[in-house]
Amino acid sequence: MRSRTACHRREPELSFAARHIGTSAADQDAMLKAVGQPSIEALMDACMPDLIRSAGDLGLPPAVSETEAQAELRALAGRNRPLRSMIGLGYHGTHTPAVLRRNILENPSWYTAYTPYQAEISQGRLEALLNFQTVVTDLTGLDVAGASLLDESTAAAEAMLLARRAAKKTTGNVFAVDHRVLPQTIAVLKTRAEPLGIDLVVADLDFPADQPPLTGAFGFLAQYPATDGSALDLCALAAMVHSWGGLLVTAADLLSLAVLEAPGAQGADIAVGSTQRFGMPMGFGGPHAGYMAVRDTFQRQLPGRLVGVSRDSGDNPALRLALQAREQHIRREKATSNICTAQVLPAVVAASYAVWHGPEGLRAIAEHAAGHAARLDASLQSAGIALAAERAFDTVAAVVPGRADAVIAAAADRGVNVRRIDADTVGVSCDETTTEADLQAVCEAFGVPLADPFDGDPVPFGLRRTSAFLTHPVFTAHHSETAMMRYLKRLADMDYGLDRGMIPLGSCTMKLNAAAEMEPISWPEFADVHPLAPADQTEGWRALIDQLEGWLAEVCGYAAVSVQPNAGSQGELAGLLAIRAWQADRGQAGRDVCLIPASAHGTNAASAVLAGMRVVVVACDEAGNVDLGDLDAKIGAHADDLAAIMVTYPSTHGVYEATIGEVCARVHDAGGQVYVDGANLNALLGWAKPGRFGADVSHLNLHKTFCIPHGGGGPGVGPVAVAEHLAPFLPSDPMGEAGAVGPVSQARWGSAGILQIPWMYLRMMGSAGVTAATSSAVLAANYVAARLREHFPVLYAGAHGLVAHECILDLRELTKRSGVSVEDVAKRLIDYGFHAPTMSFPVAGTLMVEPTESEDLAELDRFCEAMIAIRGEIEAVASGAVAVEDSALRAAPHTAAVVTADVWDRAYSRAEAAWPAGVSAAKYWPPVGRIDNAWGDRNLACTCPPIEAYGA
Amino acid sequence: MRSRTACHRREPELSFAARHIGTSAADQDAMLKAVGQPSIEALMDACMPDLIRSAGDLGLPPAVSETEAQAELRALAGRNRPLRSMIGLGYHGTHTPAVLRRNILENPSWYTAYTPYQAEISQGRLEALLNFQTVVTDLTGLDVAGASLLDESTAAAEAMLLARRAAKKTTGNVFAVDHRVLPQTIAVLKTRAEPLGIDLVVADLDFPADQPPLTGAFGFLAQYPATDGSALDLCALAAMVHSWGGLLVTAADLLSLAVLEAPGAQGADIAVGSTQRFGMPMGFGGPHAGYMAVRDTFQRQLPGRLVGVSRDSGDNPALRLALQAREQHIRREKATSNICTAQVLPAVVAASYAVWHGPEGLRAIAEHAAGHAARLDASLQSAGIALAAERAFDTVAAVVPGRADAVIAAAADRGVNVRRIDADTVGVSCDETTTEADLQAVCEAFGVPLADPFDGDPVPFGLRRTSAFLTHPVFTAHHSETAMMRYLKRLADMDYGLDRGMIPLGSCTMKLNAAAEMEPISWPEFADVHPLAPADQTEGWRALIDQLEGWLAEVCGYAAVSVQPNAGSQGELAGLLAIRAWQADRGQAGRDVCLIPASAHGTNAASAVLAGMRVVVVACDEAGNVDLGDLDAKIGAHADDLAAIMVTYPSTHGVYEATIGEVCARVHDAGGQVYVDGANLNALLGWAKPGRFGADVSHLNLHKTFCIPHGGGGPGVGPVAVAEHLAPFLPSDPMGEAGAVGPVSQARWGSAGILQIPWMYLRMMGSAGVTAATSSAVLAANYVAARLREHFPVLYAGAHGLVAHECILDLRELTKRSGVSVEDVAKRLIDYGFHAPTMSFPVAGTLMVEPTESEDLAELDRFCEAMIAIRGEIEAVASGAVAVEDSALRAAPHTAAVVTADVWDRAYSRAEAAWPAGVSAAKYWPPVGRIDNAWGDRNLACTCPPIEAYGA
Repeated sequence: MRSRTACHRREPELSFAARHIGTSAADQDAMLKAVGQPSIEALMDACMPDLIRSAGDLGLPPAVSETEAQAELRALAGRNRPLRSMIGLGYHGTHTPAVLRRNILENPSWYTAYTPYQAEISQGRLEALLNFQTVVTDLTGLDVAGASLLDESTAAAEAMLLARRAAKKTTGNVFAVDHRVLPQTIAVLKTRAEPLGIDLVVADLDFPADQPPLTGAFGFLAQYPATDGSALDLCALAAMVHSWGGLLVTAADLLSLAVLEAPGAQGADIAVGSTQRFGMPMGFGGPHAGYMAVRDTFQRQLPGRLVGVSRDSGDNPALRLALQAREQHIRREKATSNICTAQVLPAVVAASYAVWHGPEGLRAIAEHAAGHAARLDASLQSAGIALAAERAFDTVAAVVPGRADAVIAAAADRGVNVRRIDADTVGVSCDETTTEADLQAVCEAFGVPLADPFDGDPVPFGLRRTSAFLTHPVFTAHHSETAMMRYLKRLADMDYGLDRGMIPLGSCTMKLNAAAEMEPISWPEFADVHPLAPADQTEGWRALIDQLEGWLAEVCGYAAVSVQPNAGSQGELAGLLAIRAWQADRGQAGRDVCLIPASAHGTNAASAVLAGMRVVVVACDEAGNVDLGDLDAKIGAHADDLAAIMVTYPSTHGVYEATIGEVCARVHDAGGQVYVDGANLNALLGWAKPGRFGADVSHLNLHKTFCIPHGGGGPGVGPVAVAEHLAPFLPSDPMGEAGAVGPVSQARWGSAGILQIPWMYLRMMGSAGVTAATSSAVLAANYVAARLREHFPVLYAGAHGLVAHECILDLRELTKRSGVSVEDVAKRLIDYGFHAPTMSFPVAGTLMVEPTESEDLAELDRFCEAMIAIRGEIEAVASGAVAVEDSALRAAPHTAAVVTADVWDRAYSRAEAAWPAGVSAAKYWPPVGRIDNAWGDRNLACTCPPIEAYGA
Repeated sequence: MRSRTACHRREPELSFAARHIGTSAADQDAMLKAVGQPSIEALMDACMPDLIRSAGDLGLPPAVSETEAQAELRALAGRNRPLRSMIGLGYHGTHTPAVLRRNILENPSWYTAYTPYQAEISQGRLEALLNFQTVVTDLTGLDVAGASLLDESTAAAEAMLLARRAAKKTTGNVFAVDHRVLPQTIAVLKTRAEPLGIDLVVADLDFPADQPPLTGAFGFLAQYPATDGSALDLCALAAMVHSWGGLLVTAADLLSLAVLEAPGAQGADIAVGSTQRFGMPMGFGGPHAGYMAVRDTFQRQLPGRLVGVSRDSGDNPALRLALQAREQHIRREKATSNICTAQVLPAVVAASYAVWHGPEGLRAIAEHAAGHAARLDASLQSAGIALAAERAFDTVAAVVPGRADAVIAAAADRGVNVRRIDADTVGVSCDETTTEADLQAVCEAFGVPLADPFDGDPVPFGLRRTSAFLTHPVFTAHHSETAMMRYLKRLADMDYGLDRGMIPLGSCTMKLNAAAEMEPISWPEFADVHPLAPADQTEGWRALIDQLEGWLAEVCGYAAVSVQPNAGSQGELAGLLAIRAWQADRGQAGRDVCLIPASAHGTNAASAVLAGMRVVVVACDEAGNVDLGDLDAKIGAHADDLAAIMVTYPSTHGVYEATIGEVCARVHDAGGQVYVDGANLNALLGWAKPGRFGADVSHLNLHKTFCIPHGGGGPGVGPVAVAEHLAPFLPSDPMGEAGAVGPVSQARWGSAGILQIPWMYLRMMGSAGVTAATSSAVLAANYVAARLREHFPVLYAGAHGLVAHECILDLRELTKRSGVSVEDVAKRLIDYGFHAPTMSFPVAGTLMVEPTESEDLAELDRFCEAMIAIRGEIEAVASGAVAVEDSALRAAPHTAAVVTADVWDRAYSRAEAAWPAGVSAAKYWPPVGRIDNAWGDRNLACTCPPIEAYGA
């Protein structure tokens, strides 16, 4: 059943698995020969320890073709009833411009790209993200904005942590949250405050001075406009909190800021929020780009990623990440945030929506929403229905004593969902899509006549924004569809995605994102559903999520899964919080030590800290495995306070550690729980189940193993999977009962809007398919290792000299001999037409290669040959034939402008620069040369530069 | 109402018209100043003769936003009920691989490209078309295949004409068609044979010798397999027809040829057919690529386009059109075909389907269809239901005396449509998508049990194909989706489409193809409908077509429109046939002279010939206008036999002729009809209606004025529009009553599957929108003329020195002075990042520029500046500073390989070659240099070259 050929059935549609897996049976035979193994079975037997192997077939339903799977999914879609939503609460109707849907969301050049760590080949999405940062800083009136966070509620949590770090040390431990902040945000803040000992106080910030506990708070958080539709007096709040050294955080609706005064202008220090209504469908909760903007003072404290302008080797402006989440990895247990993934694709959409509409367009859209709300406001009030608060923008809260449920039902009968605030109050939010017919329906539901169109200023007196925004030319130059289409293509053409070639990133599993998997995310029956729509309108979504959670539990050997965490980091946090709550539940609240091997991802430690744990590092031996002796020592030292161990399996060194069973057993014996990080699940699926070989909890990366594309750096989805005893401690519904552990994301099912992708993947692959995918990935890694071993030492091989699904090429000795760095090799690979492997992780001076199962043999060979050719170039430097400063390696990557310059005075030829062996006429040209990071750090600029900067 | 600003409303969604039109109100003010006109109204008043202006607003429904228009269209889609189709008759279920749908059909890089006349920037689609030709020659077993025809039935008509030209002169006038040929094909052949005096005989070709009229026929046509499911004895037929010098034509199902012996191997001289079932949705009739393959002897006789392999200036293999339809334009009245548009996009899909599945996959798909048919065959026969003929492949014709309608109804109740052959016979065709459940439903409808799966060879004894096919590596190298996606991107990256920049082609109206217009063609409720599905299942389609035909009639001022013609040429033919039939109907059958001005498109004359008319050319004066004196002379000379005049308006010279009213009147007075070619409708819409200023009939190019993309050279749609008196003579239903004029296309509504595009365009633009589009296009052309006039003389300006929607730049004097040809300028424009304007049409030695309304001012200026810079380069040659042979003009276009070569010994610098003024880092690099057409002609090769040809 596990044979790779099982999935090469010759049916009218060739089985999807054979399309997903790049190598054919014949290719695999040749590769096995190179690896020295007689068969796939033998290979897996040799490299994977017997004790972790799971017996029997996976329990997935039998694989079906892409047509059949889509037909099933269409049936599920048909069970959703997308009504017009006027619920608000962080999710609004928006028109996704078709030009953005087609050319960004549905374009592999955008969605298959990786996080822009290799800045030279990521200029397109970096420019789009710089636009995003400019949109956010302009609208919030603050100085610096990052390149997106996961959602508004978690952004608020990050702001709380930033405020605690940045506030005067004399402030207290209180973070005060206005009671009219999004309820989901309050719930997430509770989850996040408690383990860190922050005293979260929900209060009425209209009268903070009346509430003694608020005095001395390190921060205030106000929603702007608030959920009751009103605008708090931010100036007064800012003055008060600043008076004792605290910070004012606003959760601001970005669209409202096109017409309302900016929070920055009113004294806010930090603004957070969602950019969903900038063109991203509601998608039953996500993914949407959250944002954070801060005053200058705090720019180095920003969590997540920040794009900055620097220059390249030719002195041309060039963009790069000024702050990478990766920097924080290195800080490990000193990290202040565990955020790594951003929401790049949704951020690109939001930024492009602003480019498309421009300042005038955004203002018109905001006024459309406000104008419709004003008309509704007038309709209600003139019929004697009072509002709970004075309306500031798009939302009214109507007071209908005892009648809320009746009004809601009447509105639903007329095709509109509105918000139940309480039994006496109904919220109605207008947006870009609101029509007169919608207002008519709502008025009928309230039993009032619809007033005439509102003809005054829909923005209440005194709240009007007066300052300009989006004044950069990019926001006015692309308003025709032709211009916009070309702009998006120009950006996409600058970048290197999976649609060009291999992205052999260790630990990031850049596999195929099949078109059949991607298509359903655009279906309106899925995309246009509000996450808080009544259950009887969302049956299809719920069924899809149930099935997917069940399948994920099955393939990983767990009892329960929650898809709520909308990034791997959030999955880690959720898993650790579950352990913490379980320990407390059994009376072991004092257990707060989390063991983490030295080889672990930095995020692990950061997540442990945020879960309120103390990190204790366990040493690794020189083979990269957990040092059992040190493990025992650490267990011994923490006999009473051991909470858990977090290990990655196979290890970040790309090896199946034979001692994993032993590690699990010893930790369990000592009263700890075992967390297996699912980052490397692509080496296990179908062959071993973490939940069966000793783990209690894992998070999975649906954007790695389960085909959600990297989107240029997000969205990711990081479900948490747990054994039976931990199931009660999964994240709870942010709008529901508190639960043992609170929510970790704003939406109950996180980034639901892209769960069709893993659903399709598992439905089309079936058990044999995913099993074959895993062994094909392992074979590919071993093939690359076998071909390159004589040119670059392979670090950390396991049994029989085999690796798992990735291999580490050690360049340290070569660097010592030649001065050629891993960075030089990475940049030189661009000239050869490749994205670089992961640099210097987990070991400095190495390259980690994960070819995945989706690459075909020709591409694997092309990569190996490029590496071998580069090895030759290094040798020439090492031998003294070429000085490293004069080498093509150091000057890489070479732009077309450089290689076509009239003057050429280099130590190598133009042909060697641009057309090294194996590069065809279809060459990818990087748009900029090597980027000077230091210069950019010294001259930090994080919004669109003036056009003149691009002059010759 | 006509003001351009009327459509710049600032609503939440900026009006679509303002997105479609590239220039803003402010831009237009600046452009008007350059043109010397105070306003749009004044410009139009000045350049457009008053007498053609139509009063009042168009009667289109008010414009709606893209969201609203799509919502309306979704409601129409919801009124279709796509059942499983087993009707056959030229349309079969097929799985469009998602990777092709997303990366070809939904990718602007493919669909916005123009016909590959500029071969250097069209290598991607030329390669895809070469794959297409290889697929067709391999499967048919013939020597040469063209790069697609319009559909199977018209391909059969072309084959009939080819056979008449190529058969021995001693053969008679009979073309014999087997009665089991597709009924639509027989109907189209009748339409096409009659005007040309061909004696079309429908006969039983199983026994041709028994039918004396067939002896000496110039050609036989047999369907293979025939519509009753059987296979005729092609060898016997070939022997007989060859014995007297005639030709055997087969209409062959390409998929069947994966398992059935090739027609070429059985003696057929010509094969025609459809490639629909290679991945193109049925789309209610089209568009699908028809094909024609012939023996070597006839290769120069092929209608349409033929891709051939040649070499470029650097001796690299390079593709180009070996036969362009354009060559035939030049032959005008001596033309043997009026075909110009091909079906490039569907042909690319079909070819890529073959690349994706490869020979093994195609065989498996064919066997799936045949195997299911065999099982059905067995089920019926073992239950005592006889077949009308022995089954050869995928179709059974079951004899159920008196029960056909009952069986059909029972099948429909079970979700399956089958074919009514006659009251006693039911046809059932299996395909790639057929499932056991489908067979079960059909058997239930027949009242028989379903037999066990067929386990023998589903291909009857003796019919099995034994020869190999698709042996070229391209058909085995891209079977993983990753590899396929990259292959398609590599091809797309080679080409220049509207997504890169302006394509200023005179007379081809390369305007925006908006994403919102394109999206609905993928909706399954439209795509998955068989054109012969029962009317109660296709209400949505019919309503859409009714609305569209009504709107088109309205905007052109006609009484009736038929969307049946699936190309402009077919629209012309349909219009002329209507005139001919009308003349005959009023007792003037002898009127067969068609006047055509010397400036007309060559297609006009070719269409007249095919409509059985004699072409008489009317001279033009030196301003390019119809010479009224010569018109009178020609009318006088043909007083009794004048049928019609065909004029283009504005003329092909890009001028509104002031005498159009006079021309119409004089022809009408002489008993003739007026045909106004709609090619230049983009200069009229909203301002003038051909049907109101004197024309009786027009064809429209939906792929020009109405936003159907050019698709790289097709599909086009060429509806015919007529005044009241001609309405009875519109093309008839190929499956219905004969009608006064027969059908001109295989499907009743032609390429219905893309009519959503013009529907969306008109729905979103409304009357003010299309009116503003026209004036914006006219302004853009006049702006370009004004900016370039001092550098290149503008030929043929009309009143006040103004042009209409295009302008002709005269290079003849410059060429005389410098030796720099229009071709040199066209190729040099590639280095500047532009597609060339139309070369040497309508006047040799000139360039015709049509900027359209969709380009923005920045792009118009970029183009003008490139032309001015090129003028400077020409001047340098003219002045003797540079020899023309040594100039960048003659060496253009410059590939990256050339400009990065280690040796550079040219008279100009590398920077001048690659980075002329205005070219940015986002430069488009042509993949090959100037192509040697003469070499290609001497060494004609029209299938995929061996890989070695690409070696260094």
